[in-house]
Amino acid sequence: MSNIENNNSKKRSAILLIHCPDRTGLVASVTDFIGTNNGNILYLEQYVDMEKKVFFMRVEWDLTGFLIPDEKIGEKFDSSTGNKFQMRRELHFSDEVLRMAIFVSEMPHCLYDILSRCYSGEWSVEVPVIVSNHKTLQPIAEKFGIDFKYYPINKSNKHEQEMLELKLLEELRIDFVVLARYMQILSEDFVSKFSHKIINIHHSFLPAFPGAKPYHSAYERGVKVIGSTSHYVTADLDAGPIIEQDVVRVSHADSISDLIRKGKDLEKVVLSRAVWNHIQRKILIYDNRTVIFS
Amino acid sequence: MSNIENNNSKKRSAILLIHCPDRTGLVASVTDFIGTNNGNILYLEQYVDMEKKVFFMRVEWDLTGFLIPDEKIGEKFDSSTGNKFQMRRELHFSDEVLRMAIFVSEMPHCLYDILSRCYSGEWSVEVPVIVSNHKTLQPIAEKFGIDFKYYPINKSNKHEQEMLELKLLEELRIDFVVLARYMQILSEDFVSKFSHKIINIHHSFLPAFPGAKPYHSAYERGVKVIGSTSHYVTADLDAGPIIEQDVVRVSHADSISDLIRKGKDLEKVVLSRAVWNHIQRKILIYDNRTVIFS
Amino acid sequence: MSNIENNNSKKRSAILLIHCPDRTGLVASVTDFIGTNNGNILYLEQYVDMEKKVFFMRVEWDLTGFLIPDEKIGEKFDSSTGNKFQMRRELHFSDEVLRMAIFVSEMPHCLYDILSRCYSGEWSVEVPVIVSNHKTLQPIAEKFGIDFKYYPINKSNKHEQEMLELKLLEELRIDFVVLARYMQILSEDFVSKFSHKIINIHHSFLPAFPGAKPYHSAYERGVKVIGSTSHYVTADLDAGPIIEQDVVRVSHADSISDLIRKGKDLEKVVLSRAVWNHIQRKILIYDNRTVIFS
Amino acid sequence: MSNIENNNSKKRSAILLIHCPDRTGLVASVTDFIGTNNGNILYLEQYVDMEKKVFFMRVEWDLTGFLIPDEKIGEKFDSSTGNKFQMRRELHFSDEVLRMAIFVSEMPHCLYDILSRCYSGEWSVEVPVIVSNHKTLQPIAEKFGIDFKYYPINKSNKHEQEMLELKLLEELRIDFVVLARYMQILSEDFVSKFSHKIINIHHSFLPAFPGAKPYHSAYERGVKVIGSTSHYVTADLDAGPIIEQDVVRVSHADSISDLIRKGKDLEKVVLSRAVWNHIQRKILIYDNRTVIFS
Repeated sequence: MSNIENNNSKKRSAILLIHCPDRTGLVASVTDFIGTNNGNILYLEQYVDMEKKVFFMRVEWDLTGFLIPDEKIGEKFDSSTGNKFQMRRELHFSDEVLRMAIFVSEMPHCLYDILSRCYSGEWSVEVPVIVSNHKTLQPIAEKFGIDFKYYPINKSNKHEQEMLELKLLEELRIDFVVLARYMQILSEDFVSKFSHKIINIHHSFLPAFPGAKPYHSAYERGVKVIGSTSHYVTADLDAGPIIEQDVVRVSHADSISDLIRKGKDLEKVVLSRAVWNHIQRKILIYDNRTVIFS
Repeated sequence: MSNIENNNSKKRSAILLIHCPDRTGLVASVTDFIGTNNGNILYLEQYVDMEKKVFFMRVEWDLTGFLIPDEKIGEKFDSSTGNKFQMRRELHFSDEVLRMAIFVSEMPHCLYDILSRCYSGEWSVEVPVIVSNHKTLQPIAEKFGIDFKYYPINKSNKHEQEMLELKLLEELRIDFVVLARYMQILSEDFVSKFSHKIINIHHSFLPAFPGAKPYHSAYERGVKVIGSTSHYVTADLDAGPIIEQDVVRVSHADSISDLIRKGKDLEKVVLSRAVWNHIQRKILIYDNRTVIFS
Repeated sequence: MSNIENNNSKKRSAILLIHCPDRTGLVASVTDFIGTNNGNILYLEQYVDMEKKVFFMRVEWDLTGFLIPDEKIGEKFDSSTGNKFQMRRELHFSDEVLRMAIFVSEMPHCLYDILSRCYSGEWSVEVPVIVSNHKTLQPIAEKFGIDFKYYPINKSNKHEQEMLELKLLEELRIDFVVLARYMQILSEDFVSKFSHKIINIHHSFLPAFPGAKPYHSAYERGVKVIGSTSHYVTADLDAGPIIEQDVVRVSHADSISDLIRKGKDLEKVVLSRAVWNHIQRKILIYDNRTVIFS
Repeated sequence: MSNIENNNSKKRSAILLIHCPDRTGLVASVTDFIGTNNGNILYLEQYVDMEKKVFFMRVEWDLTGFLIPDEKIGEKFDSSTGNKFQMRRELHFSDEVLRMAIFVSEMPHCLYDILSRCYSGEWSVEVPVIVSNHKTLQPIAEKFGIDFKYYPINKSNKHEQEMLELKLLEELRIDFVVLARYMQILSEDFVSKFSHKIINIHHSFLPAFPGAKPYHSAYERGVKVIGSTSHYVTADLDAGPIIEQDVVRVSHADSISDLIRKGKDLEKVVLSRAVWNHIQRKILIYDNRTVIFS
């Protein structure tokens, strides 16, 4: 149940994310594994892609009284159930606290929004560092007492700066990266090191208006609705698996600066919903699409 | 999978809707019943009300090769699984065609919308009759070749007219009733005969503005958003389980007739989503709330 | 006031749509023209494109007691006010009933929706003809007693069939054309004859997914929101001035047929809002963008 | 033009908000006053409440080269134009910086959101003080370097504490107050001192669920959409003129804590849109309804 995750209940739960070729008996096998080991299912959701015949599942169960110790659950599951069905699985525990790095450039709205969620306890994450190619937002990092690392990037130093960033992320044992209006394109190399672990916010309704200056393009085209898209970063610009999108109405009377102002509010909420789903372990990725459990 | 239900696939499936006290092993038991009888689960969704400790489930499986004949499934399920867990269940088959009666007064927009969905094959229902307390919409019924029954209602004849209507519904083996802006309040007696089988559209965002003239009240209050609510009819006016709601923005510049015009479009779509969920057997009702499977 | 247009008030009003280079005194000049001729302004809205320095205005006034007869208003306005400011203007009267032709192919949902609005008096338009390249929807035309013209189109006969269609539209004195999911691309020639008088509904959130099969593309891309766009048809496919757009949320669990089903409801309401604005004379077009007065 | 207000243009403009009994010649008179004194209108919007025959207008003009000095504009307008038509008017200048006090209790989300807008320059306001009946959020005030005043309120001391608060607001020359989830009801006395200058955010879609614990009530009622409402505070609890409302979809699967979490994001954006309109001088209040110019 999602409320377990939100409130301050001390109950620990395990979360299993699975996908495999679809066939008869999958749900029964997984729930049987949990039930016979004395786990009470709190939440179960499955989905079958009927076209591609792929089965997806997220199941979360109470660990109170569960007969298998944490460190053995994965292995026991694979040997008793997973391997038989060629299941690919992730196992998580509800009390894990993910370590998040935030990359920014010069716009503060998403950064403020993220930090306020972390500091008010809305998100259970740690933020060891804020990384930027500008010093503009350093004062915000200081306000919140977070380390700020400045890596100015230009055409000639991009590779070496990214190497330094990667080293930093490794040293800080960063689990995932949020690009909170970080206006640089990460290299394929960088992305491959954090595959499906970099969340970006793009300020348009993708696939409309990819790349630079989408609000200007939206104004030019005369659209009546503008949008924001949060997605995992892949090697293809603005083409990774979409996690969340939303829109807001605009009119001819909205200037470009009005679009930017309205869009900022959208960016904040769309990015934060995406990060929320990520840290709640509600996302599976398959064929460049996301399955988002509710 | 919902696409099974939409396309013209000939595969028949069974749908089981269940609720019971929550405990360990429920999902495993149900899926085991299906799996051991050679049923392939197409769609499974469960939900636990953690506060009330009630378990809800909708499971749909392909009947191709299923080992139990249709007419024995319910009984076999109860004896092998359901009774043990005190499950209350409904069993449906994907090729059932429900028989719907439409009650109207004088406004045509919802009636047109419903009939266009039936006639274009979007909904798989039969409409043996349209019932009204006015003759205003009789020409529409004629246009579509549907029987139109006129039961004018006033204070003195309400009971006897309702008795005639109930007799008609019984004769026509009506499964459920849609009140498509039927401006009469049905008696408790009538409602009890079609418990959770009468779907109403109320032209406000309930619980705001129940009763008569909600658009006028919304205008008076100066709200910035108006809404529509589709719900099952119970003995309490506009207080039955809500199936679907949606809203549209308005401004000070919208007159009452603008609210009515914008609201009509909302009423059509909100009512139709509710009916869709009803005929797809996606709704469970518990404690005056609906669980709507996706 | 917009309520004037909706209710059954018999008051006639005049509507002036203007655009011209921006400069001081424009609003004063126009309102002075109306006031000194004894017209009471019911509604006035102006907008200045600050970047391009263009002034736009819609003003509607009560004709009761207005000192200039209808047929002289335009000329008097131009000579006293318009010419001085290089104003381009349209003049309309609230009791004009526009003549609309509907073009369809095989999908009935938009056609049903439009006809129900015309027949219930929601729209004050006349529909002399429905045109199609298929006979599929002829029965609907017959149900509503409207002439149905069948012009099958293939690669070799497109030009001559369009010529016949144009001849028909001229004979019937058609004011504007609604493409209610008409799946043919009109030639530049045809479009030029009805410049800014052909309204299309495209089943995507333009500029995303132009052209054929947008729901399939949206599914493939894994978007979380789908949209519809109504626009004036120009020579460039799906690139004309946008009148109205709206969206609906979808999830991974929605199959392509779910997207189509949800999209249909969107298409109906987006197209109808666009047509409403057109017949209410609320739209000005400039540089491939629409100014839509409220 | 709204873009004038957003960008960093140095052009000063004057804003006139007017309402009066409707009659012929109002727009012409006002625009004539501006034009003959060499003012170029940047934005003009008018609205007539046709039922109550009241005329509303917002006009903004460039002061560059305007022939009347700031301090004489009001008086000159009244004598030449306003008095003749019994106009009630407000006159503002685009470079005024309003002084805002923020009242909070224990929830930080709206406070963080407001402060981030102030500090990033999105809003042009000054925040001399944060007032609270709890010390919980004092660290946030300190983070941002803003004075924090603690006035614990109980049944016996409410009057005297409010007197102290009012004294403080006066000393600090506060222009308006934002109740950012301040969970106390202000006395009629207090409210009357800041008539239409106190903006509240209520965590429901008013008039549904006024008073305490609206998310709990919404859950209990089983609504499918939850909302937020920002309004001016009047003596009647949650019944003042509504400035802005918005909603978000929920489902049976959302627990009360999910509603609270989703609702918080709504509260932030709804409150901020209301404050934006207030500081942009876009709001007129009449008969407990707001006219919000675009």
